[in-house]
Amino acid sequence: MIHKFQPKIYYNAFGTYKPALKVSDGDTIITSTVDNAGRDSSDKQVAKRGNPLTGPFYVEGAEPGDTLAVHLRRLWPNRRIGRSSARIAPHILDAEYVNEHPMKTLTVEWEIDLENGTARLLEPKINLGEIVLPLNPMLGCLGVAPPREQAISSATSGRYGGNMDYKGLTSGATVYFPVFVDGALLFLGDGHAIQGDGEILGTGIEISFDVEFSVNLLKNKEITWPRAENDKYIMTIGNARPLDQALQHATTEMIRWLRKDYGLDGYEAHTLLGHCIEYEIGNVYDPAYTVVCKLKKKWLNMIRHHDQK
Amino acid sequence: MIHKFQPKIYYNAFGTYKPALKVSDGDTIITSTVDNAGRDSSDKQVAKRGNPLTGPFYVEGAEPGDTLAVHLRRLWPNRRIGRSSARIAPHILDAEYVNEHPMKTLTVEWEIDLENGTARLLEPKINLGEIVLPLNPMLGCLGVAPPREQAISSATSGRYGGNMDYKGLTSGATVYFPVFVDGALLFLGDGHAIQGDGEILGTGIEISFDVEFSVNLLKNKEITWPRAENDKYIMTIGNARPLDQALQHATTEMIRWLRKDYGLDGYEAHTLLGHCIEYEIGNVYDPAYTVVCKLKKKWLNMIRHHDQK
Amino acid sequence: MIHKFQPKIYYNAFGTYKPALKVSDGDTIITSTVDNAGRDSSDKQVAKRGNPLTGPFYVEGAEPGDTLAVHLRRLWPNRRIGRSSARIAPHILDAEYVNEHPMKTLTVEWEIDLENGTARLLEPKINLGEIVLPLNPMLGCLGVAPPREQAISSATSGRYGGNMDYKGLTSGATVYFPVFVDGALLFLGDGHAIQGDGEILGTGIEISFDVEFSVNLLKNKEITWPRAENDKYIMTIGNARPLDQALQHATTEMIRWLRKDYGLDGYEAHTLLGHCIEYEIGNVYDPAYTVVCKLKKKWLNMIRHHDQK
Amino acid sequence: MIHKFQPKIYYNAFGTYKPALKVSDGDTIITSTVDNAGRDSSDKQVAKRGNPLTGPFYVEGAEPGDTLAVHLRRLWPNRRIGRSSARIAPHILDAEYVNEHPMKTLTVEWEIDLENGTARLLEPKINLGEIVLPLNPMLGCLGVAPPREQAISSATSGRYGGNMDYKGLTSGATVYFPVFVDGALLFLGDGHAIQGDGEILGTGIEISFDVEFSVNLLKNKEITWPRAENDKYIMTIGNARPLDQALQHATTEMIRWLRKDYGLDGYEAHTLLGHCIEYEIGNVYDPAYTVVCKLKKKWLNMIRHHDQK
Repeated sequence: MIHKFQPKIYYNAFGTYKPALKVSDGDTIITSTVDNAGRDSSDKQVAKRGNPLTGPFYVEGAEPGDTLAVHLRRLWPNRRIGRSSARIAPHILDAEYVNEHPMKTLTVEWEIDLENGTARLLEPKINLGEIVLPLNPMLGCLGVAPPREQAISSATSGRYGGNMDYKGLTSGATVYFPVFVDGALLFLGDGHAIQGDGEILGTGIEISFDVEFSVNLLKNKEITWPRAENDKYIMTIGNARPLDQALQHATTEMIRWLRKDYGLDGYEAHTLLGHCIEYEIGNVYDPAYTVVCKLKKKWLNMIRHHDQK
Repeated sequence: MIHKFQPKIYYNAFGTYKPALKVSDGDTIITSTVDNAGRDSSDKQVAKRGNPLTGPFYVEGAEPGDTLAVHLRRLWPNRRIGRSSARIAPHILDAEYVNEHPMKTLTVEWEIDLENGTARLLEPKINLGEIVLPLNPMLGCLGVAPPREQAISSATSGRYGGNMDYKGLTSGATVYFPVFVDGALLFLGDGHAIQGDGEILGTGIEISFDVEFSVNLLKNKEITWPRAENDKYIMTIGNARPLDQALQHATTEMIRWLRKDYGLDGYEAHTLLGHCIEYEIGNVYDPAYTVVCKLKKKWLNMIRHHDQK
Repeated sequence: MIHKFQPKIYYNAFGTYKPALKVSDGDTIITSTVDNAGRDSSDKQVAKRGNPLTGPFYVEGAEPGDTLAVHLRRLWPNRRIGRSSARIAPHILDAEYVNEHPMKTLTVEWEIDLENGTARLLEPKINLGEIVLPLNPMLGCLGVAPPREQAISSATSGRYGGNMDYKGLTSGATVYFPVFVDGALLFLGDGHAIQGDGEILGTGIEISFDVEFSVNLLKNKEITWPRAENDKYIMTIGNARPLDQALQHATTEMIRWLRKDYGLDGYEAHTLLGHCIEYEIGNVYDPAYTVVCKLKKKWLNMIRHHDQK
Repeated sequence: MIHKFQPKIYYNAFGTYKPALKVSDGDTIITSTVDNAGRDSSDKQVAKRGNPLTGPFYVEGAEPGDTLAVHLRRLWPNRRIGRSSARIAPHILDAEYVNEHPMKTLTVEWEIDLENGTARLLEPKINLGEIVLPLNPMLGCLGVAPPREQAISSATSGRYGGNMDYKGLTSGATVYFPVFVDGALLFLGDGHAIQGDGEILGTGIEISFDVEFSVNLLKNKEITWPRAENDKYIMTIGNARPLDQALQHATTEMIRWLRKDYGLDGYEAHTLLGHCIEYEIGNVYDPAYTVVCKLKKKWLNMIRHHDQK
């Protein structure tokens, strides 16, 4: 079934709120997100600043102990103006360097060419030249309600997903979340037309999105951290501070995946990862940082058939 | 001038040792390295375990305050057997996971096909399947003598380079080091036929190498951390623990590069990096971790011409 | 006014819940807390495991931008049995050491002598000898409702306080919290009869408490992180991971205090702290670690009178 | 035997240098140290800036696998002028706070009253008031030659000791170091008349010292990290970045001590430490931070007699 959903309420936290829409396993949802400042496709403020979220979507039958798969069918900006910070956050640079840091924050604007898929830097404030970059529309916020009846700010992330700000969460990716509450309660928001590794400005090019996604329920499938895949990679996502800990979570989750679903033992999983693992840094800006551990599917095709252990 | 150099002594530290060979700006050196365990092209132990280094090469005219450029012309294994650990280091995984960790270290062997450029896992100890991976020969250790008359173990790294274990230091890359002592004193070693991001096993596929490189001296050019470039990227390298600090060093050095050599001001450098920066994790195993900050040259071609500031 | 309050509902998060009791500036509250597992003075489970909290107490007139002072008048266990873990959490020890780590968790019991103020280790499971330690009753959880309508698990902490697990929050201490919501909404729980630095077991000697405290409202007084004082010290509390960041928060807050309330300029505050600062580690177990920055009041008596800046 | 030793050469690294003096197990050495800037008791520069070290002292019979005990008999400044920085290092404060940070470094002077044991802040540059603090003379640098023929800057520290900047290394303390080279090669320097926790200024009150110490050799006694004791405490010292790792090293070494020398098993050592452990932060300024794990001797007197395991 396909749902067209126009959000009316936006939440600034991932929590166990009243469902905005109930959907079933396999359903597709066509909806929209506002930008990080709460501005919609008309660039009008319709929600409170700070990553207001569309949702929550209640998935019938989802219970703690299950996994929710979210297929991102299509993410695309729905207006022609995007905004980004022009200042790297001081905690990302050497402490001694800050005397040379631009003292004030500055916002710059980008003209989005929706047809050709590019963003062009608008020049009034800085003189960087004719900068035209290809769009890579991604969701900064994607996740489910956290455990223990918490409501956690959409500025941060955890095992439930959240504000992971990872540039790989684009059209074509499938993302998996552990389910902590009945119905899972999926939220999405904080679209970026483009974002570099680490979200070092504290923003991507912030913009409102049209979004199409579908959901699948994996009953009695337990995962510890969010996972993802696209046509080339399987991925695991760790969210924590410092980076070292985020990397530990992501790497450990990848080993769990290889051991449980691919039947590898410890030495086998370690050997495969040791030579083939790739890491990406989602963000080093938010209260919890995000590290993604990736493994090309072509390496997985090489391993012997194992019976699942 | 081209030097053919057969090492006789190997050092297990980066330090101000007696030069093994004196070379001039622009010279090419053809030499070899032994593996991390001190084994040569005949798989015979000729040096002490622990990343024994070829060198030091004294570059005539190099003085503190200069930069040494090292062009890696050709790195290639020179024997048919490589070895790697089969166990991820515990500090890279969640502390609570270690009860499921393989308790003992295990070494596995790889057959190297030097003609076709592949490594095949030899099977006696683990049953992973028919694993054949493409070679990506890289130097784990590359650097100059550190400041302050130090001699620092080839197990770790710093501003002088060292054991950075970054898979991007391959044939075709040029690496730049700050010069701390007269002659710079370049060392190299610890060749890996293949290594994943992070060197999470504590080894790549360890093997002896034939190496051809040339050097250039950039007089009165001061850099703070190692830099590199290849045909697609400019790169800066931060070495420190934890990862957060290594990333701070690399990012700050990239900003210095953009401001000084490309004439960008703070907001301009930040804006360009914010959307175009890429990070790679060299290693998360050694006493100092390595993070590489990368920027595609094609983005640099886009910026306005700036007079150097 | 003195309120005697018998809790009926316990929350496992710090959030904007319905007030349990409304009190006024200057009021005293006599109440009780259950232990971390939800067991009361009869050692009967009356609340859900995981630091169930007494409260919230709504303080009339408290608004965002104010500070709430909580005077801990008397904290004392109200039963004769306490429990602690007998196993240091693996993430507190070297990763390579874990092979020698006790594999299983183990709980040990302590007999509490309420009259003489001691705890005696009960011996059935471990053979450590006749261990009798002096009580130092402290609250592991103390804090107010966090901002942004969040509800955050009582397993962690932040600017709002929370599960800080600092052994200095004992009878006689006054603790200051920034107010984020109307009424401040104060919570308390997780009493420890004794706890070492760092709460390295993940528990102190967990026990239910009788608690007497009073509150004062400091209107239009803004602080960034929790502060505290007792007869000897002023203190600031940073909650974050890793320890380095918790220490940054606590140190920065102490400088703010010295500059704003004592009129010191930057160099003056830095010089005083540089030679007189003391740090204590609250916990290195919880998702956010806690570092306390302390300054003896006797050093403050030494500085010149400054007009408040 | 008692040696009076007047240093002629000072080293700025811990390394395997030519012995300055050979001493025997049990000998006492009376010597002096210059300050961090190389200034002696006449405030005359006699050595190169950057923690120049007195030594190395070669202890007859010391071999790798032994432990060297250093008893600090008497440490006392030998001149009347001390100097300290007046600016906390930026990396110790919140990154966002640095805009309010004093931009420039500033050095202030202290008048040392050697008879009454106090330091008085001299006022020309800052107006803090009449600050008179009690002396606590301690050695910032103390350690032996590191392994692997390294020579490591006296700005940092490791398993061999080094620039630990811990205020507990005062008269009356005994410090234990693992021996890595024949003769152990003991170095000392960087005296501080007073230093707060963390050495957050990057200096204590820097001054030259008269030093009296004796050495004992513990043959075939292996330790992993430096240990210490005084009349009240046993202590273990971890040196690393970040703080979390320094704390891991110190805590793990304390468990080794309790298990091996006091015969406790894992649960027993963990239980004792869990309630009685104390942490001190030596420094959070140097390349490696220092955390000290302390246990009161009175708690050790409580445990049952165990046969050594």
